[in-house]
Amino acid sequence: MRQAGRSLPEYRRLRGDGDILDAIAKPELAAELTLQPVRRYGVDAAILFSDIVVPLAAIGVGVEIVTGRGPVIDRPFRKYEDLRRLRPLEPEADLAYVLETIRMVVGELNVPLIGFAGAPFTLASYLVEGGPSRTFARTKALMHGEPELWHQVVDRLADIALATLRAQVKAGASAIQLFDSWAGALSPSDYETFALPASRKVLEGMGDLGVPRIHFGVGTGELLALMSEAGADVVGVDWRVPLDVARRRIGAGKAVQGNLDPAVCLAPAGVVIEEATKVLQDAGGEPGHIFNLGHGVLPETDPGVLAQVVETVHNWRPGTPSGEVAG
Amino acid sequence: MRQAGRSLPEYRRLRGDGDILDAIAKPELAAELTLQPVRRYGVDAAILFSDIVVPLAAIGVGVEIVTGRGPVIDRPFRKYEDLRRLRPLEPEADLAYVLETIRMVVGELNVPLIGFAGAPFTLASYLVEGGPSRTFARTKALMHGEPELWHQVVDRLADIALATLRAQVKAGASAIQLFDSWAGALSPSDYETFALPASRKVLEGMGDLGVPRIHFGVGTGELLALMSEAGADVVGVDWRVPLDVARRRIGAGKAVQGNLDPAVCLAPAGVVIEEATKVLQDAGGEPGHIFNLGHGVLPETDPGVLAQVVETVHNWRPGTPSGEVAG
Repeated sequence: MRQAGRSLPEYRRLRGDGDILDAIAKPELAAELTLQPVRRYGVDAAILFSDIVVPLAAIGVGVEIVTGRGPVIDRPFRKYEDLRRLRPLEPEADLAYVLETIRMVVGELNVPLIGFAGAPFTLASYLVEGGPSRTFARTKALMHGEPELWHQVVDRLADIALATLRAQVKAGASAIQLFDSWAGALSPSDYETFALPASRKVLEGMGDLGVPRIHFGVGTGELLALMSEAGADVVGVDWRVPLDVARRRIGAGKAVQGNLDPAVCLAPAGVVIEEATKVLQDAGGEPGHIFNLGHGVLPETDPGVLAQVVETVHNWRPGTPSGEVAG
Repeated sequence: MRQAGRSLPEYRRLRGDGDILDAIAKPELAAELTLQPVRRYGVDAAILFSDIVVPLAAIGVGVEIVTGRGPVIDRPFRKYEDLRRLRPLEPEADLAYVLETIRMVVGELNVPLIGFAGAPFTLASYLVEGGPSRTFARTKALMHGEPELWHQVVDRLADIALATLRAQVKAGASAIQLFDSWAGALSPSDYETFALPASRKVLEGMGDLGVPRIHFGVGTGELLALMSEAGADVVGVDWRVPLDVARRRIGAGKAVQGNLDPAVCLAPAGVVIEEATKVLQDAGGEPGHIFNLGHGVLPETDPGVLAQVVETVHNWRPGTPSGEVAG
């Protein structure tokens, strides 16, 4: 469960309210923040405490993560000359602290660690907009208006994502996740032209390492077949698409990940368990299902409820009727 | 094209930067603001200059529309006692200025006027959250945690929507649109349980008036069949779902509305016209297509580009190849 730490008092105590990028840059702290939710919830994998903009900050892009808003870029990217600011990432030099965190975490974990990166479209949208956007208007104007520049931006971002993911696996991550968080803002045709090729470069570029590749975005119902084609082994789905429908769109031979609504986790425990059970029932089928929320854990979530969700998932056997699981 | 006025200099001059609810309350001003985009673009219908929260303000709910943010409710609704604040709407008394605006507009228009209301789920989400939300966490917690209270809230909001829509038609509107703007935040199962029944009450309650009923929300790809079932004659679709796919989900006997991406309208004119043409091609089929953007016009849109889009639509004949339309 991504961002599960945010719901934990021990996380808030340790993390304080300092800059998240500073916390990520301290391996001992970042390792402990990665481990906390695993200890508390007994989940089957850990996800690295980091952020998709970390590689951008590491190559010198001025970026700050503003609480309640998201990443803010100090000089947005809109011209050819801005390309110069996207130099290749050298993970051992630029992201030594992330790799050190991974080595420390892997030394203590007895479940797999999932590394991750931001997909080129989503990172490009932050660079072009200068921050989070509701409309992605500047991004879409640039991709349609200057497609050649756009393709160079996302190609460089693909190289950066690939470099960080390969380094994360070499440092000990057992699986990777490519977050195309905002791809769902695109029409299928725009996704296919302006986002898919660069994501495919990343996912296919990981093929020789033999680790599972998870691909996820929010509101991607119409894009699932294309996201699957981009080279994922597992396609993550938010709560908008029931997992049986998602499986049909994703196609044979791929696993699904998801998709309990994080907002539903604020309802009373009985309701949450019933909804988690529905997810497990919808997910039936091969080759596998990674139970997860459909997006990050909301900070106001009751850790006790999440613990019950984990127990529900662990006790689940196909065929169990809804509501009789966590009794 | 909803919110088309925002792109026009004559709109910005006339409207100034005063409170939008004040502008809506002045029939002469609101009528002129309704007519401006029709004059400028020569579109085939007008949409009333108003806002979905107007009936709430009219029954005494403290609501302000904050620029760049949206409607903000001064005392959010979360308890049974809050129901008292949702008294029935008496349109002739409470919304006399809206009805007066409609009469003035209809007197000057030679195209149909579309009236509208907010759907119960979307209005309830504002009331419960206290404003716009990214997660709808409080709304979902309430609907799942206190379903009986939730159903009473949306049932009262259905009565309010129905009262305003019926009054708008009696005053001269030739079609109505029910905006369930944020329904796309719900899973299909939550939509079916917590939103659809109240929307159906509104749409079916309009059945005897014989005017076309349009039903629209953003990000509703998985909900189209259900939104169609709720009793619409036309289902509006955003740009995420190609219209041929949307038609299959909506089912026979219903028209589609949409779905050019408003953000794509910021690209160079040639691209915009090509994309508009794709929409027209995808929409082929019976019984009809209302060309529209997939959401409101963005304020920074070039009116010259929108004028070319309108021309493209007016010149369109099925079978025209892409890119050869507006030449």
